[in-house]
Amino acid sequence: MADNMGEHLLNRIHFPADLHQLSEEQLPEVCAELRQYIIDVLSENPGHLGASLGTVELTVALHYVFNAPYDRIVWDVGHQAYGHKILTGRREAFHTLRKFGGISGFPNPAESEYDAFIAGHASNSISAAMGMAVASALKHEDRHVIAVIGDGAMTGGLAFEGLNNASVNPNNLLIILNDNNMAIDHSVGGLSQYLVDITTSQAYNKMRYDVYRGLKKIKLIDDDRRDNILRFNNSLKALLTQQHNLFEGFSIRYFGPVDGHDVGYLVKLLNDIKDMKGPKLLHIKTKKGKGFKPAEESATEWHAPGRFNKETGERIIVHKLNEPQLYQDVFGHTLVELAEKDKRIVGITPAMPTGCSMTYMMKEFPDRAFDVGIAEGHAVTFSAGLAKEGMIPFCNVYSSFMQRAYDMVIHDVALQKLHLILCLDRAGLVGEDGATHHGVFDLAYLRPIPNLVISSPLNEWDLRNLMYTGYKISDGPFVIRYPRGKGEKSDWRNEMQILPIGKGRKLREGNDIAVLSLGPIGNEAMKAIDQIEQEGISVAHYDMIYLKPLDEALLHEVGRKFKRIITIENGVIAGGLGSAVLEFMADHGYTPFVKRIGVPDQFIEHGSIPELYKLCGMDADNIAGIIRQLHAPSDQ
Amino acid sequence: MADNMGEHLLNRIHFPADLHQLSEEQLPEVCAELRQYIIDVLSENPGHLGASLGTVELTVALHYVFNAPYDRIVWDVGHQAYGHKILTGRREAFHTLRKFGGISGFPNPAESEYDAFIAGHASNSISAAMGMAVASALKHEDRHVIAVIGDGAMTGGLAFEGLNNASVNPNNLLIILNDNNMAIDHSVGGLSQYLVDITTSQAYNKMRYDVYRGLKKIKLIDDDRRDNILRFNNSLKALLTQQHNLFEGFSIRYFGPVDGHDVGYLVKLLNDIKDMKGPKLLHIKTKKGKGFKPAEESATEWHAPGRFNKETGERIIVHKLNEPQLYQDVFGHTLVELAEKDKRIVGITPAMPTGCSMTYMMKEFPDRAFDVGIAEGHAVTFSAGLAKEGMIPFCNVYSSFMQRAYDMVIHDVALQKLHLILCLDRAGLVGEDGATHHGVFDLAYLRPIPNLVISSPLNEWDLRNLMYTGYKISDGPFVIRYPRGKGEKSDWRNEMQILPIGKGRKLREGNDIAVLSLGPIGNEAMKAIDQIEQEGISVAHYDMIYLKPLDEALLHEVGRKFKRIITIENGVIAGGLGSAVLEFMADHGYTPFVKRIGVPDQFIEHGSIPELYKLCGMDADNIAGIIRQLHAPSDQ
Repeated sequence: MADNMGEHLLNRIHFPADLHQLSEEQLPEVCAELRQYIIDVLSENPGHLGASLGTVELTVALHYVFNAPYDRIVWDVGHQAYGHKILTGRREAFHTLRKFGGISGFPNPAESEYDAFIAGHASNSISAAMGMAVASALKHEDRHVIAVIGDGAMTGGLAFEGLNNASVNPNNLLIILNDNNMAIDHSVGGLSQYLVDITTSQAYNKMRYDVYRGLKKIKLIDDDRRDNILRFNNSLKALLTQQHNLFEGFSIRYFGPVDGHDVGYLVKLLNDIKDMKGPKLLHIKTKKGKGFKPAEESATEWHAPGRFNKETGERIIVHKLNEPQLYQDVFGHTLVELAEKDKRIVGITPAMPTGCSMTYMMKEFPDRAFDVGIAEGHAVTFSAGLAKEGMIPFCNVYSSFMQRAYDMVIHDVALQKLHLILCLDRAGLVGEDGATHHGVFDLAYLRPIPNLVISSPLNEWDLRNLMYTGYKISDGPFVIRYPRGKGEKSDWRNEMQILPIGKGRKLREGNDIAVLSLGPIGNEAMKAIDQIEQEGISVAHYDMIYLKPLDEALLHEVGRKFKRIITIENGVIAGGLGSAVLEFMADHGYTPFVKRIGVPDQFIEHGSIPELYKLCGMDADNIAGIIRQLHAPSDQ
Repeated sequence: MADNMGEHLLNRIHFPADLHQLSEEQLPEVCAELRQYIIDVLSENPGHLGASLGTVELTVALHYVFNAPYDRIVWDVGHQAYGHKILTGRREAFHTLRKFGGISGFPNPAESEYDAFIAGHASNSISAAMGMAVASALKHEDRHVIAVIGDGAMTGGLAFEGLNNASVNPNNLLIILNDNNMAIDHSVGGLSQYLVDITTSQAYNKMRYDVYRGLKKIKLIDDDRRDNILRFNNSLKALLTQQHNLFEGFSIRYFGPVDGHDVGYLVKLLNDIKDMKGPKLLHIKTKKGKGFKPAEESATEWHAPGRFNKETGERIIVHKLNEPQLYQDVFGHTLVELAEKDKRIVGITPAMPTGCSMTYMMKEFPDRAFDVGIAEGHAVTFSAGLAKEGMIPFCNVYSSFMQRAYDMVIHDVALQKLHLILCLDRAGLVGEDGATHHGVFDLAYLRPIPNLVISSPLNEWDLRNLMYTGYKISDGPFVIRYPRGKGEKSDWRNEMQILPIGKGRKLREGNDIAVLSLGPIGNEAMKAIDQIEQEGISVAHYDMIYLKPLDEALLHEVGRKFKRIITIENGVIAGGLGSAVLEFMADHGYTPFVKRIGVPDQFIEHGSIPELYKLCGMDADNIAGIIRQLHAPSDQ
């Protein structure tokens, strides 16, 4: 690596065109600087460190060989793409990553023309890139389309559907499998084992590649003629009588595995294969956290480490005494507590054991805890199968990822009225992960499904109570949605009790206006009401606890007593709690004025939770303002 | 085959226990009778003929070898399972198949304990059965769990997610791949080609199986010891240095392909492998429509042929002059008409080209029409990729199957505001296919998604107009939902015109009550209003056309003028049009009495459309009754 006395190379690279000016020999230096830049910035500004350190060489090689944005690079899950952002006009802005008004943590075409497709949810890159490649073919354009997909994302059903279609229509898609044997936690499943096994046939694949290059050199292969290619594939296979490749089972040509940290070799390889016709897959092996020792050694912990000391490798974690726990930890500990008493209880999560704290269950009851990989649909239907045989599954899926399992909730769970508990973690606005990750649709998309019970806790005690209730007295599917992050209580380990299904509670008596809230956003409402009570406005506050079934007695009381009602939910206002209350009032002949507070009908960007609450008018100040406004007419 | 002079064997089989009394030699006769019985009954009572004829021998073999219901047989897509129904207590009731109050066209645990899991949507069997197998293992039960999955269903992402998890947890799942190279239309994708290729290695697989049996006989293999099995697999592989198998890539032991119509051989094989430990896959080759010549020769046409003459093989299709066309045909022809004028237009459908009439486009523009197999998620994200590059995709997915692509609509389409047209065929109640297939949730689950335009045509003219509008003036995602079956018009080919986005229309002036309808159910409303007008009640009727954006001017007019409003939609009443109207009225300070008509909050069984309309109170008579009721208070 070159000495760093002079100006950094990275400072000269604003766009890929600048990178193209460099010689191949300079690329390792660019990689080193890029890696250091990512470490420097993320040590101060929290982000997803590990994945992007692992793709530094790939990123540099891709932008060196290909001509973005004309060529399309489709990243699968954007955590990999920080280097890409830095090399495509966003180096200066990189410290604003994931901040309100700053750049997004994920590729986003609305942010840059270099971001070819949205990349928040895993496994979509092959299908999307294939659409782009087919479109280019139909328009007789010669652009390259590249999908970069991790081995974790490769376990998602959508990726498989893409692979299965790759060979059907003419396209020159290049799929790069970035294999670090990690999703956030370790990759799971037969495919994962397969990717380990395949390394053993490296010699074969290297030989194949060398033979291909040789034949190409002496013009025995002409990539413009597809039949020749097929002959090449077949004859070589026949020649070597070697193992059939999983990907070649899909008629996708396979290259690899190769060292994903050898930028020079990657450049050579990409140049060689980029103009081959037909779909092809390059399998590279990388190390998550590459180049930063602590992150290499503990990839899960350093997936998104928060702030850290880049010299010592210490994570800067501020512990406060008696601080509330994360909802996630409360879930994890409570699940173990329940599972200790009833061996029918099992835990299922799709690739998020650390994020949702299923890890406690995995540690205590390894036989009864299942990380199924990035496979939300399977997580739900597998849980349904377990429930059908009398187990009591707690299936934990992030709210926005549950969108992937919507049909499974309807068809495999609700229709059969199976007794299981669907725990929707990361419900409501999630903060820095932004538009793709906000869990704001769940109330609206789950409410129309028959047989579901849908609940949300006001605090950690109620999370425990609802877990207990869902397990103990429900006989069908029981949904609990709760947010990311800290709760309200330092003494979270209450004695669990039943919260009768379909019963809300009155938190505060009042006469002028009724506030109906669902879930932890109710605490924001409480602050507002505390504030407003000083002003002599008498506000009743009801915590619904259950969106479905609704507490009809409570709503009759409200309908009879109040002419003005405010509903508050941490979710889209079209179709959720507010709509349910309107429906109830209409069905029973009440005609109050109802003001709904929630997430408006638009995709909400990233930012801190307080910033986003404010943006959506869900913060205490705004709620107080609305109460005042609503109260005003009768005052005047 | 035995002479049929005496009593039929089938008449003695009420449950599998009766089948167990027979000798293996009698099974071919049982198969012949079962096949004939299916043909006899379906010739009079329409149903899905082809798939169930193809699985006659498998069904008999499974119930002969296994001990259902203790052993669990999980059918993937229930069309295969008619024989199963007949052998498990439902022979007498079989003629009521798919009729209101009769037995379901799909396996349904609510109908029989022999139906181990619901099976309306494809690809769920492996995940569900794996849950059941793991539960059995946890409970130390020795039951067998068998998933029977077609090659079409195997292309769904959920099936892949199941396969990928099969080897992770201890289970003895037996997957039977029923390979007839057909979904409803021909199977699509790399996997399909792979399944053809694999036949060439039959000799290898036969040898493997024979070696296995030999080793087992001399006790060199002990199935109770997993390490021995692994050794067996590996050593044999090493011995033969043969092609790696796609399924073995997932660490699932593979057997086959074998003749799925040789019942004796199937029985022998199932007996041999049933107690093997670990997940395993048996690949059988069958012929859709087997044993009924016309169905064998034209499998797509005979997938669900309606009534037919079982002697001559003629389908009984009643043609009426100038009868309205199917909405499906109007879609298909119109798409071609548009595609002729704009080469950016492409068509995509997941495995339903015949059902949705994408076949016309496939015939006229084979390069621009894509059947992607059973892969709804891919269909949508692939369409998004095409749209991102400037193509204008018409992506046609049945409404209830779109539930499988919910996240893709949110994340890959709406978030990027891509211009494409999502055509939701089979929206609303679908009739005989029942609870799993009713497309009743779409309005509620799509409405909360930002950036979507959601529309539904009153009739075929408007379907054409909406297709034209979505293509011509929309710049984002445009949803059109329309029902299965015939429309209203014999002269459906109108001159297409723009229906301004977010504008409804007044169909009839009136003063007492306003009816707001969306989609073809508006015709039912018209009949009711015609009826009611005779009685001197003056009803205004508005066809909303668009659920989103709402026609605010129209709704202000209604809010100002009417104190009583009825909303009518062919979908669940929680969250759809009725809720949207309530939200609008609340947001703008109107307080009319609103009565919502639609599908109630329960899963609706199968039956004819008129029967189901009546059941849900959506028929003209009931609508008229509600109008009368609503009008009454002011009369008295």
